[in-house]
Amino acid sequence: MEIFHPAEILSRDEIAAVQTRRLARVVKRAARSPFYKAKLDEMGVDPESITSLDDLTRLPLTTKDDLRASYPFGMLADEHRELVRLHASSGTTGAPTVVYHTEKDLRTWADLMARCMHMAGMRKEDVFQNIAGYGLFTGGLGIHYGAERLGCLTIPAGAGNTARQIKLLRDFNVSAVHIIPSYALYLAGVVAEQGLDPRDLPPRIALIGAEPHSEEARRRIEEMLGLKAYNSYGLSEMNGPGVAFECEHQNGMHLWEDSYIAEILDPQTQEPVAEGEVGELVMTTLTREAMPLLRYRTRDLTRFLPGECACGRLHRRIDRITGRADDMLIIKGVNIYPMQIEKILLAVPEVAQNYQIVLEREGYIDQIKVRVEIKEEFFIEDMRVLGGIQKRIAGLLRNELLVTPRVELVEAKSLPTSEGKASRVVDLRETKD
Amino acid sequence: MEIFHPAEILSRDEIAAVQTRRLARVVKRAARSPFYKAKLDEMGVDPESITSLDDLTRLPLTTKDDLRASYPFGMLADEHRELVRLHASSGTTGAPTVVYHTEKDLRTWADLMARCMHMAGMRKEDVFQNIAGYGLFTGGLGIHYGAERLGCLTIPAGAGNTARQIKLLRDFNVSAVHIIPSYALYLAGVVAEQGLDPRDLPPRIALIGAEPHSEEARRRIEEMLGLKAYNSYGLSEMNGPGVAFECEHQNGMHLWEDSYIAEILDPQTQEPVAEGEVGELVMTTLTREAMPLLRYRTRDLTRFLPGECACGRLHRRIDRITGRADDMLIIKGVNIYPMQIEKILLAVPEVAQNYQIVLEREGYIDQIKVRVEIKEEFFIEDMRVLGGIQKRIAGLLRNELLVTPRVELVEAKSLPTSEGKASRVVDLRETKD
Repeated sequence: MEIFHPAEILSRDEIAAVQTRRLARVVKRAARSPFYKAKLDEMGVDPESITSLDDLTRLPLTTKDDLRASYPFGMLADEHRELVRLHASSGTTGAPTVVYHTEKDLRTWADLMARCMHMAGMRKEDVFQNIAGYGLFTGGLGIHYGAERLGCLTIPAGAGNTARQIKLLRDFNVSAVHIIPSYALYLAGVVAEQGLDPRDLPPRIALIGAEPHSEEARRRIEEMLGLKAYNSYGLSEMNGPGVAFECEHQNGMHLWEDSYIAEILDPQTQEPVAEGEVGELVMTTLTREAMPLLRYRTRDLTRFLPGECACGRLHRRIDRITGRADDMLIIKGVNIYPMQIEKILLAVPEVAQNYQIVLEREGYIDQIKVRVEIKEEFFIEDMRVLGGIQKRIAGLLRNELLVTPRVELVEAKSLPTSEGKASRVVDLRETKD
Repeated sequence: MEIFHPAEILSRDEIAAVQTRRLARVVKRAARSPFYKAKLDEMGVDPESITSLDDLTRLPLTTKDDLRASYPFGMLADEHRELVRLHASSGTTGAPTVVYHTEKDLRTWADLMARCMHMAGMRKEDVFQNIAGYGLFTGGLGIHYGAERLGCLTIPAGAGNTARQIKLLRDFNVSAVHIIPSYALYLAGVVAEQGLDPRDLPPRIALIGAEPHSEEARRRIEEMLGLKAYNSYGLSEMNGPGVAFECEHQNGMHLWEDSYIAEILDPQTQEPVAEGEVGELVMTTLTREAMPLLRYRTRDLTRFLPGECACGRLHRRIDRITGRADDMLIIKGVNIYPMQIEKILLAVPEVAQNYQIVLEREGYIDQIKVRVEIKEEFFIEDMRVLGGIQKRIAGLLRNELLVTPRVELVEAKSLPTSEGKASRVVDLRETKD
């Protein structure tokens, strides 16, 4: 096995040893910040007493609200003069959050990112197009620094401007791209509309992340663009991209346990779920200097996958994110995640790229409607054919969700598309309670 | 004098020695590219024969059209596998151009940029907000890498979203910004509209560049925002920002002659202009590995400033860019540069931030009209007062331009503004010939 970094092939014992040593250090470092100093004092936890991984549960959980409340400086565990970067959220839905980095933090992040890219088969010889917004969004600069660390010829293409993206892919014979899943499907559609085969575009590897997507969406991207698509997981609170990534086997994302301790907890009780069950991913940074986070509740739902990966790396694998704890819809008393709906829809051959979930209220009852684009060749005026497709989709959804959504078939390319992250859920209910 | 890099304080003899050595090397390197190999062969120039600075004039001039014609790989002087970055122009006005960088090229660029920032008074302790588009535009990543090299806490704010820019400036007590001149004036206006004093914003230093602007525009920025604004010069063909920069004395931009050889040529004859005369800046890269450029015609008009700077650095200073060779307007047979008009307008106390130059055709005669925003307190209904201002502006413009433009006074904030580069010239002539 070719590796980028020796930490990739640590044994489980070695991982535990590294985690133990780094946990003790990071707790002491976190205790320098106003937030954790107060929190640990309040809980009566002496940082010096954290000496084993079993001590983890004695540490406080940290939430996004904690980050907001301590904006802008409360989480800072470092001298100001060692800081070289900050990333801040837009704060469009509440107070912003901020994450700081020292120069060493940026190096560690770039190394983790390069390790991910290498694991997915990228090499120094690749020409890499980074189709992601730069600036404060961590997906742009995070991936960028990783690609330069790996030594790829990196094209900082940014987001949007599809015609130009396609021109760059072709002109520079781009072999690997970073792209948001819904935009990958959109871009393939634009090429197909020009009467060309998207599979003739040069890339052989796509790194996909930044929005939850189903296995079916990944397979569609692979088929439409004629490449291998590798799932990426990250969040700005844990630097950004580079937390977990798929290897060549594409069977879950190896989470770098030398840099993070991951727990899967029940989002309601905050107790560990049973082995292999889905719950909220909770993470502790082990290497960050400027702003360590202890047991951060990511709100992302996933599970640890059982068994060892054929690649030989022993860092545990997490399943694709099945949604966010906050994304859960409750319809007629049933919990529904949008990702369950996507999974069903994109497995139906007649379905085109786009769909929309519409929530409505009739009287006091919430209704869920799914608007589905049907491929042109199936969208014929024969009501029996369309009726059959509609019934089939409704049945499949009922089996998965345990409620019966209304299904509306629409023509391909009639639903709004976006060059950014797709917004799949439209809530038309007048009040939310 | 505090310096960032020893090359800042080279003597003139040492600069000449470095230039001679590096010129010989860069010509040999350039000759590896298909474009220069063919060009030098055609001119019968043996790269080995370039041994002194006097040999410079034996080398070919290079134009933007040459870059376009050799897109995408014709200028490449390096093995593909050593490349780590490319920046490409949008090619909206013709074929795109591309510039490649090796890892060493990026390091050199960041060093030059950090040297500029340090010379303008920035230090490691500064909090730096980079208000510039990232991605393929070199102004974003170029400045960003320089600030990180210097060790500043860097906020990759990107372009646009003024409310958020202002929030970041305040929340993180930002001490230095990079900002486009017209956007600096716009941002100050937004703060003033909130009933607040833009001078209370924290920054003490602004790096301004990316669009030509007059001394009067700089002074306005300084007064409105209560800071020192330093001119920056660069262009993507010469990496991007970091080519020349003002020192604390703000009297012209020191051009880093250990990395570039600069000539000022007559744009028509390509002969050197007389000492101190305005002409086209022509530059040769001395340190670039991936894509050296020999005697590149920048189209930018400037002159060498006479005498030595009080700061003690002996790298020659260029004057602010007075326009582009392409920007020249010919009205009634007279050459006019938009910057001449800005210079006059912004020195008039009654004039607000914005103005527009409108070109019209009446019959066969081109007319120039200048629409000028007048500050609210002067925009009163008394026609005599407004008439007086109008006459005064028309007189000042006539003296400068030698043609008499029509002057139209408009209310403050009535002309279109932009969050990007200002577009000052509107051409309403039906045909251009």
